[in-house]
Amino acid sequence: MLNILIAGGVSLLITLVGTQFWIKFLHHKAYGQFVRSDGPTGHFVKRGTPTMGGVVLILGVVLGYVIAHAVMRSPVSVSGLLLLGLIVAMGVVGFIDDWLKISHARSLGLGAAAKLALQIVVGVAFTVLAIRFPDHRGVTPASTYLSFLRDISWISLPVIVAVVWMVFLIVGFSNGTNLTDGLDGLLTGSATMVFIAYALVNLWQYNQYCGSVMSFGPTCYDVRNPTDLATIAVAIAGGLLGFLWWNARPAKIFLGDTGSLAIGAGVAGMAIMTRTELLIIVIGLLFVLEAVSVIAQVGFFKLTHGRRLLRMAPLHHHFEMLGWEEVTVVIRFWIIAGLSAVAGVGLFYAEWVVGLVGQ
Amino acid sequence: MLNILIAGGVSLLITLVGTQFWIKFLHHKAYGQFVRSDGPTGHFVKRGTPTMGGVVLILGVVLGYVIAHAVMRSPVSVSGLLLLGLIVAMGVVGFIDDWLKISHARSLGLGAAAKLALQIVVGVAFTVLAIRFPDHRGVTPASTYLSFLRDISWISLPVIVAVVWMVFLIVGFSNGTNLTDGLDGLLTGSATMVFIAYALVNLWQYNQYCGSVMSFGPTCYDVRNPTDLATIAVAIAGGLLGFLWWNARPAKIFLGDTGSLAIGAGVAGMAIMTRTELLIIVIGLLFVLEAVSVIAQVGFFKLTHGRRLLRMAPLHHHFEMLGWEEVTVVIRFWIIAGLSAVAGVGLFYAEWVVGLVGQ
Repeated sequence: MLNILIAGGVSLLITLVGTQFWIKFLHHKAYGQFVRSDGPTGHFVKRGTPTMGGVVLILGVVLGYVIAHAVMRSPVSVSGLLLLGLIVAMGVVGFIDDWLKISHARSLGLGAAAKLALQIVVGVAFTVLAIRFPDHRGVTPASTYLSFLRDISWISLPVIVAVVWMVFLIVGFSNGTNLTDGLDGLLTGSATMVFIAYALVNLWQYNQYCGSVMSFGPTCYDVRNPTDLATIAVAIAGGLLGFLWWNARPAKIFLGDTGSLAIGAGVAGMAIMTRTELLIIVIGLLFVLEAVSVIAQVGFFKLTHGRRLLRMAPLHHHFEMLGWEEVTVVIRFWIIAGLSAVAGVGLFYAEWVVGLVGQ
Repeated sequence: MLNILIAGGVSLLITLVGTQFWIKFLHHKAYGQFVRSDGPTGHFVKRGTPTMGGVVLILGVVLGYVIAHAVMRSPVSVSGLLLLGLIVAMGVVGFIDDWLKISHARSLGLGAAAKLALQIVVGVAFTVLAIRFPDHRGVTPASTYLSFLRDISWISLPVIVAVVWMVFLIVGFSNGTNLTDGLDGLLTGSATMVFIAYALVNLWQYNQYCGSVMSFGPTCYDVRNPTDLATIAVAIAGGLLGFLWWNARPAKIFLGDTGSLAIGAGVAGMAIMTRTELLIIVIGLLFVLEAVSVIAQVGFFKLTHGRRLLRMAPLHHHFEMLGWEEVTVVIRFWIIAGLSAVAGVGLFYAEWVVGLVGQ
């Protein structure tokens, strides 16, 4: 349990203190963000704000995890390493994108196809590894079952379908968080709540672990390394809170694709490993809505040959165009993210209670 | 458990939907807030924003509690009724203050002495009742022991001292939250986290209740009606989140003294009934800092015959004077409140873990 607190504390300290130095370094090098020219015009004032804040976040999470294990002399786990690997790898994809934007001094970065290809490569590598490495009870970090509140025992997917499904989740959510990251603090604050929710799920799965003597029967959970996943969830939540200090309006730095892609991959990885793949639609509702808003906008535009569903996509810009202040959108979206996280954890817990009563 | 979800959901819905009607009603009656003339000059633009939003909040909490019990046909508890009584009574004190401000169209309201006297009356009434009504195991809603993470068994206070101490907590915290309520959303958001923290404390005390067969020994908790207190904590947190929708910058309505005094009384009541009186300094750190900043400012001013410790008190105005945007202060203070709440619950849980290991 102390592992978790150390990882969260270290990560928090690193982003809280380290981000300031990173901002100074980026300013010194004159690496500012070139805000997309298709956003609301009020956003042009953000030109010059440094990006790639995700570098400090990822550093905080990795060091938080490593230091916690070093201090407690506890062994690392397969699930923990795989999830960290996924986050770092997707962060690297984002970094390449951010770097191209900066060095070409334009807002485009990687082409859409190249970015998607790299995301798929990372997703496939993670998934193919995660369905291996059974523990002494035969449980692997990820399973080939479709899952909602746990693995759905009657929906066993063929390996290839399972891999495609999990890669879809990883790519989908990393793009969802990428799209959400358009207003100061929006993604940082809402993702904090999502990872706190996952920490609670992890801890409850550990508490009701099928391999322990204390709990068994239909309500127990067959997952691998839940406490190590909780350590990472808390490290991310702590790191995000520290980063939010600097990312809150007026943002001194943005997460960049480095941060937003890594966060989305972390969310999807958590859902896959906790066997709550469909529950992520509830816990991460905001990211789903943001992604769907873009797809719907583009689809509607094409279908109707030029009409618009929203004033502007993604969703948060729509409300800005309706006249809400940027910060009003951010705080109201945080409220939605908080309620979704609570509802998701509530559903997860309620299923356990009902299962217990049904025993 | 369902009680808790219903109470939180009802309270959330009432403030989310009801606040809008309340705002319209107050605008119709032309009841605007007259912002204190001693705050930063930028705040004068807030003149005209309606106040007394606490009325909807208190309504939401009470109806959430009543409806949850009605739907579940579960009996109410002494602790629950006493805490609700404390919150409503302190809300009435605040309402008188707000009403006088509006009807006299000035920012002063009740005189300081009259306000304090009413707060003390409410505090004494609550405390004197709360140390009565033992359950079948002899546990009363409040105890005469000083408490930190539980009652400190070697610090039993004489009844009169215990009453004075608890009244001090109630009056102190209702003034602390009153002072915190100076920036859009600041108190609403930070109090949400404090009540979520108390809900977790309540639920754990229920889980490890000394009266149950499953848990006993030195780590169990002797408290009265923990689940009913959790119901109220979640009702308040839900109500606050719904209210925050309208109270987020730019605030369409303020809590007013009606809301801020009631919230502070709720925080102190929770600390008293969960036997975590000293822990409240951690969980409610922000409110303590805000209150101390005013006391220190005034004391320093008098001692030095006119020098100032802070640019302006309470604390949040100091940072505004340093050039932080209002919303930056709010979000950073929320981060502090969130970390304090996590630290408080962490301490509470760690003591239980250590006690268990020591058994």
